[in-house]
Amino acid sequence: MSVLVVGTVAFDSIEAPAGCAERILGGSASYFALGASYFAPVRMVGVIGQDFPQDHLDLFTQRGIDIAGITREQGDTFHWRGRYHEDINQRDTIELHLNVLAGFKPKLPDSYRDAEFVFLGNIDPVIQMDVVDQIRHMKLLVCDTMDYWIRESNADLKKLLQRVEMLVLNDSEARLLSGYDNIVKAARTILRMGPKMVLIKRGEYGVLQFSDSAIFATPAYPLEEVFDPTGAGDSFAGGLMGQLARTGDLSQGGLRRAIVYGSVVASFTVEDFGVKRLIDISLPVIEERYRRFVELTDFHS
Amino acid sequence: MSVLVVGTVAFDSIEAPAGCAERILGGSASYFALGASYFAPVRMVGVIGQDFPQDHLDLFTQRGIDIAGITREQGDTFHWRGRYHEDINQRDTIELHLNVLAGFKPKLPDSYRDAEFVFLGNIDPVIQMDVVDQIRHMKLLVCDTMDYWIRESNADLKKLLQRVEMLVLNDSEARLLSGYDNIVKAARTILRMGPKMVLIKRGEYGVLQFSDSAIFATPAYPLEEVFDPTGAGDSFAGGLMGQLARTGDLSQGGLRRAIVYGSVVASFTVEDFGVKRLIDISLPVIEERYRRFVELTDFHS
Repeated sequence: MSVLVVGTVAFDSIEAPAGCAERILGGSASYFALGASYFAPVRMVGVIGQDFPQDHLDLFTQRGIDIAGITREQGDTFHWRGRYHEDINQRDTIELHLNVLAGFKPKLPDSYRDAEFVFLGNIDPVIQMDVVDQIRHMKLLVCDTMDYWIRESNADLKKLLQRVEMLVLNDSEARLLSGYDNIVKAARTILRMGPKMVLIKRGEYGVLQFSDSAIFATPAYPLEEVFDPTGAGDSFAGGLMGQLARTGDLSQGGLRRAIVYGSVVASFTVEDFGVKRLIDISLPVIEERYRRFVELTDFHS
Repeated sequence: MSVLVVGTVAFDSIEAPAGCAERILGGSASYFALGASYFAPVRMVGVIGQDFPQDHLDLFTQRGIDIAGITREQGDTFHWRGRYHEDINQRDTIELHLNVLAGFKPKLPDSYRDAEFVFLGNIDPVIQMDVVDQIRHMKLLVCDTMDYWIRESNADLKKLLQRVEMLVLNDSEARLLSGYDNIVKAARTILRMGPKMVLIKRGEYGVLQFSDSAIFATPAYPLEEVFDPTGAGDSFAGGLMGQLARTGDLSQGGLRRAIVYGSVVASFTVEDFGVKRLIDISLPVIEERYRRFVELTDFHS
């Protein structure tokens, strides 16, 4: 089964303690698609400008990603500039140029309308909803968001949450959306907004998954070097949904294993700048680190 | 097999978002001993003043704890006053009265000298070393410390670390001791100072255990309410060493399970002020939460 992602395709300029990178390939849809591409066929929906190089598009197609849903518009590509602190878990947005993203109205190719595993990357909830309306039936609808939309488009986001199966967000976003500091209370409150599952990303501390019936907690894969955390969350979601699409296993166990696969993919992403490491892996390499993850967390044997 | 702990016996005054408590029973040896007492016989070494009530001593003996190593000296008992922030992971020390602790020179009763599982609670490394010298042979020597000793008694602490099997500390202490921000690098650096194992406590984010051959990562038990984190780390160590003494299993698997038992004990501690919840549990209650912990983290079935 295949995975569909709608989100940003961007140029990222990154300043981090380990170095700098200027106008490299970025965006939620890019990271998600590349992460998912090791597991299942991926279809991408997004917008680029006149300045977006063919090389980057070729990168997607080389990974077998269907880019029929990427449209090129007049103007420049979305550009984000961020600066990471010495404490790599913190970053500031230095520049944000929406450019062609400002007028983004995704129109899904007909071939995309039967998508079963759909990921709504972090964009305006109105656009996210618009995409949902264009798809005939779905097996799993997963959504990401961020503090900006929680603050500025709260009503639209809440409307969307009633249709979403799983919400993926980080802990500060969960606190903001719920109004609770305690993360368990925050998650339970968000579950009452609609989603059957809430997945809370905690960066180097791992992931918490909440549903009405259970909680799953898993640490992150410990790394000696974190060069650039950009895209960790989106490639995590890509690995997660790719694995779900590969197996079709939506049982509690299947979901938990998919979360671990997502964590494994994200652990590669942060090992180098941008998508550099993420495009340089393979399913056997992912499987090997998954086995290490099992050893890392096992206390039964 | 029995467990020996040397550390503080104190009055704690606590200000937290959930409420306040004045001069309640506290101290590293108290929390450790109570936590360990559900698993194995415990022997306590510490000092109290004239103002320390018989009730508190009775509490220890009711839990089967051997208090022959607690001496009562002229003066008042060690008193700590701390204030927790809205973010319960942060606290400030408001008052610190060493009182009788200033002159503490532990002299182990003869009956203690064959102790096999020894925990050196967070006190002056010179005192910690003095205790080690009084014990004939040990199966496992575990040590805790804090930022103050890392800064002010660095040489004494490093000398002690060469004799210690396992060092238990939190992530900011690991960063301070090692000079590395990255926690994996920090742990590897500390391993080179002597301990065969380093255990890094991350509060609500769980625990990382490092040895030369492996890393073990486990999340914390998620709680809807954290009233008072005081003593979480010490009761964690108590549960850990109690379980090791109960089973005598020092294999990698045995150590990992003991870490989970420690996390379970700590999860009870923070559910109420001071030792209130910690003295109100039982081994079956601990075992029940351990099983829930297994379910919480399992992604194989």
